Amino acid sequence: MDTLVTDLGHTKTIQHGGDPKAVEARFPAPKDGWLDLSTGINPVPYPLPPVPGKMFARLPLQADLQALLDAARRAYGVPDRAAIVASPGTQALIQMVPTLFAPSSVSIMGPTYGEHAPAWSVAGHRVEDVRSICAQAAQPAPFGVVVHPNNPDGRTQTVEGLLAFSEELHDRGGVLVVDEAFADVTPELSVTPHAGSDGLVVLRSFGKFFGLAGVRLGFAVTTPDIAQRLSAKLGPWAVSGPALWAGTHALDDRDWTEAARVRLKSDARRLDDILQRAGFKIVGGTDLFRLGESDDAPAVFEKLGQAGILVRPFDYQPRWLRFGLPGTQADWARLEAALNA
Amino acid sequence: MDTLVTDLGHTKTIQHGGDPKAVEARFPAPKDGWLDLSTGINPVPYPLPPVPGKMFARLPLQADLQALLDAARRAYGVPDRAAIVASPGTQALIQMVPTLFAPSSVSIMGPTYGEHAPAWSVAGHRVEDVRSICAQAAQPAPFGVVVHPNNPDGRTQTVEGLLAFSEELHDRGGVLVVDEAFADVTPELSVTPHAGSDGLVVLRSFGKFFGLAGVRLGFAVTTPDIAQRLSAKLGPWAVSGPALWAGTHALDDRDWTEAARVRLKSDARRLDDILQRAGFKIVGGTDLFRLGESDDAPAVFEKLGQAGILVRPFDYQPRWLRFGLPGTQADWARLEAALNA
Repeated sequence: MDTLVTDLGHTKTIQHGGDPKAVEARFPAPKDGWLDLSTGINPVPYPLPPVPGKMFARLPLQADLQALLDAARRAYGVPDRAAIVASPGTQALIQMVPTLFAPSSVSIMGPTYGEHAPAWSVAGHRVEDVRSICAQAAQPAPFGVVVHPNNPDGRTQTVEGLLAFSEELHDRGGVLVVDEAFADVTPELSVTPHAGSDGLVVLRSFGKFFGLAGVRLGFAVTTPDIAQRLSAKLGPWAVSGPALWAGTHALDDRDWTEAARVRLKSDARRLDDILQRAGFKIVGGTDLFRLGESDDAPAVFEKLGQAGILVRPFDYQPRWLRFGLPGTQADWARLEAALNA
Repeated sequence: MDTLVTDLGHTKTIQHGGDPKAVEARFPAPKDGWLDLSTGINPVPYPLPPVPGKMFARLPLQADLQALLDAARRAYGVPDRAAIVASPGTQALIQMVPTLFAPSSVSIMGPTYGEHAPAWSVAGHRVEDVRSICAQAAQPAPFGVVVHPNNPDGRTQTVEGLLAFSEELHDRGGVLVVDEAFADVTPELSVTPHAGSDGLVVLRSFGKFFGLAGVRLGFAVTTPDIAQRLSAKLGPWAVSGPALWAGTHALDDRDWTEAARVRLKSDARRLDDILQRAGFKIVGGTDLFRLGESDDAPAVFEKLGQAGILVRPFDYQPRWLRFGLPGTQADWARLEAALNA
């Protein structure tokens, strides 16, 4: 019976990385364990000190939440006029934001992360899949979604372009959702410091950059009005004690953040070199994942899978594979060996 | 600005325990720290072994979730025909269940936990506050909520009565929500082993009995159809890695569970004795909290607050105070001394 519940209808159709179980029917379980490069999660997690027992035991306190929100404001450069809401993962916000508004229509810049379109659709909105922010602006839809930088191709927009588009959507009675799930590695491109203006909802993901996807923590940075409606939907104690504690510590660690950005940038170049030597053209990505294109992509996917290495294929573009970064030197060597086998 | 978000409109009107910050304007911060008896959370938490780093780092796996659901099935005696859904706390389910159904009307057996009525109201349902399950059955409302055992007065129903009422509501096109947040201490009264029948949604709370409210973990046990709709609303990765791990370990620990039930029963009697000696009549409760009645309740609340001890008053019944159990011998002594001061 649990399969009805855990094998959600929509996870059958939306492709995700991060769970080898999904491919176990296809590839044999490797004796050294899976090397999962199918996500864009930092493979070197923030070195979290032990979480105090009280964060597990007691109900999360308002003071704990406030400390987290203050740390997030500093880390993301949230302006005073904007409000910030914490949630148990960005996914919860992706599903909730469309329910704040009466059914209308939304343009989504694609191809992109697969959870946005069904969330708007389930909430009753008509979904228009468009290929650029200019094509979005030409649509009459009052709502828009831009993943920025985009997943999987890493496309970025100018801050000015995003702000102008959000103002336009506000004039149409809608909002622009900018999902900055991977923006931590390119803070100079982020629109978060401009949040709080009408018509703009920015989503930030804690777990990807800090390599702590299991804690489930995300943020919406937006106007006080929209933030209050999201908070009411989330209800009290939405974020767990361990997540509040982990987020507060990691977001305030500037030294680790800077060092991680430098390392991820270097590792992304290293991955590009390996992929190019294996015949891939690098067609996009961020410092948390790289998008390679090759006629041999399906064969490489198969070869890597047989070697216990999971990467991310795309049903809409079979010539693409998305690669997360290996973490240890052994994992780097394992990927390189498997690509060259 | 954050006050707009963290001081939710509805937390201003719904009274909750568990956060001394709410009373800091009223009582001076005690030099020994607060003794918070304002919740019904077990003060002796399950002794959780250190949570492995991977549960923080990676996205929660389907296998992790399945292990949790299997443990919950065993612990709660969930029948095969029922489906079970895990959520980041029961609160999320309390807010989601009313949104599964077209606006109608609901009868809620009160006085009870304050989050049910606003959740149904926000979802567009008319809320009827009734005093007994018989009065509920006499109402035409197709939906019903019974907290079982009830918070704060501990009232229980027969399994037969709850099942008959859920069948009646199913015939009316609705469901009965049975919130068994405190049922772990009285498993013989639980309706969970009968879940899966039409018209019945049982909610279970992990954090209260196991003293791990910070991890945010709750369950709905119901028909596969309703479970699937709840799962879709919750989305993927709704429960954090640490919560999956903590729940799987604690729910499967029968020895701890049995010993905790024995200890809580004994401590509840001990608390009754102390309260009776302090002039309270015990008018209800469960082994996780006791409800005392006294003309002096407002004065006792004030006296305890001045001594740094928080208990739960009720605006609708000023003669009542609800007391959680002290955990350590020092806390027991502190409560007794403050009551007799």
